[in-house]
Amino acid sequence: MRMKFHEQLDALTDRLASMCRLAGDAGRAATEALVLADLPLAEWVFDLNDQIEELRGPCEDLAMALLALQGPVACDLRQVVTGVHLGADLSRMGGLVQHVAESVRRRHPEHVASGEAEELLSDMGRVAAELAGLAERVLRTHDPELAAEIGRRDDELDDLHRRLLTLIEDPAWIGTVPAAVDVTLLGRFYERFGDHAVVVGRRVIFLVTGEQMTP
Amino acid sequence: MRMKFHEQLDALTDRLASMCRLAGDAGRAATEALVLADLPLAEWVFDLNDQIEELRGPCEDLAMALLALQGPVACDLRQVVTGVHLGADLSRMGGLVQHVAESVRRRHPEHVASGEAEELLSDMGRVAAELAGLAERVLRTHDPELAAEIGRRDDELDDLHRRLLTLIEDPAWIGTVPAAVDVTLLGRFYERFGDHAVVVGRRVIFLVTGEQMTP
Repeated sequence: MRMKFHEQLDALTDRLASMCRLAGDAGRAATEALVLADLPLAEWVFDLNDQIEELRGPCEDLAMALLALQGPVACDLRQVVTGVHLGADLSRMGGLVQHVAESVRRRHPEHVASGEAEELLSDMGRVAAELAGLAERVLRTHDPELAAEIGRRDDELDDLHRRLLTLIEDPAWIGTVPAAVDVTLLGRFYERFGDHAVVVGRRVIFLVTGEQMTP
Repeated sequence: MRMKFHEQLDALTDRLASMCRLAGDAGRAATEALVLADLPLAEWVFDLNDQIEELRGPCEDLAMALLALQGPVACDLRQVVTGVHLGADLSRMGGLVQHVAESVRRRHPEHVASGEAEELLSDMGRVAAELAGLAERVLRTHDPELAAEIGRRDDELDDLHRRLLTLIEDPAWIGTVPAAVDVTLLGRFYERFGDHAVVVGRRVIFLVTGEQMTP
């Protein structure tokens, strides 16, 4: 019975890691679509997000089956409930990059952003996708060093975000208010994506060590 | 044993409803702080958010105790897992209105927004707080009519949000880019607050009826 439990828990973790990989792929595709104003690439982000959502239901069902049939307690129970939370985090990461793709689609064939703002958003998108890659590895390896690395890389993302807002709020910035609205929202989507990746890393490490990582 | 289960589940629901009431109070206070550029009121939002977070831990612990000690299955199990999700939704609602209060604090003694943009944000804040009030009543009564009402009122919130973006993107708008950045983010915070209230209503109704509400 215990062996069966851990096999099923591994299956749950594997699906969560797949959701995370897809979120990273979607983040990369959305950012490339943004930089190239590439509509088919933006549409592909919607497909990737559908794939994330298709994994979410089975994750929740698997967690429910583990709770109902195996009656886990203590650490085993906490692992399953964490799996439930992780499914929600990863689904949200997919939703956030889909918002980036929606923005690309709405402005096509124009670019959503231009010049230095586009470059900073491109950097944010690159770091965000890397965070998802790190989170996937934390899910698969439970390595606390990698989880700490997510926190450090997320600081980099936050720094890029601050630079983005400083850029567009500078009186010398030549963009329009509608462009500022788009850039503000895109920056926010990437920032939130990074926050969720940090939370994924922290949840996994809390499970393994029983210790909260310092924010 | 079953009676004990339902007593504990009622205690969980009661705490979730209290979190929801606090989120509504915080939403009202944050909006008043925004309109009055009132720093003490903004600080009070932080206190309210702390109270929300203080309820979240015990909610999660109660859900874990229900799962570990009562070994619920089927509908009972789904109710507890939904409680876990609801705790996350309500915590996020508190976080979003805290962002509004942070914005007030950052710009004080200046107003964050002015004129028609401030009026629309004030309307969004009022509707958002009402949505939290409806969500609290859905938690306490399980009334599907009230949950449907949340959806309708959230459409009103989305409409105010569209009007806000149309206003600031109009070439006739006299605001600056930094003001547009603030208004964009504030609009987004209220919109997301409303989305979470809708999800709270849907989760509760799904539990009671077993049927997904149409989006």
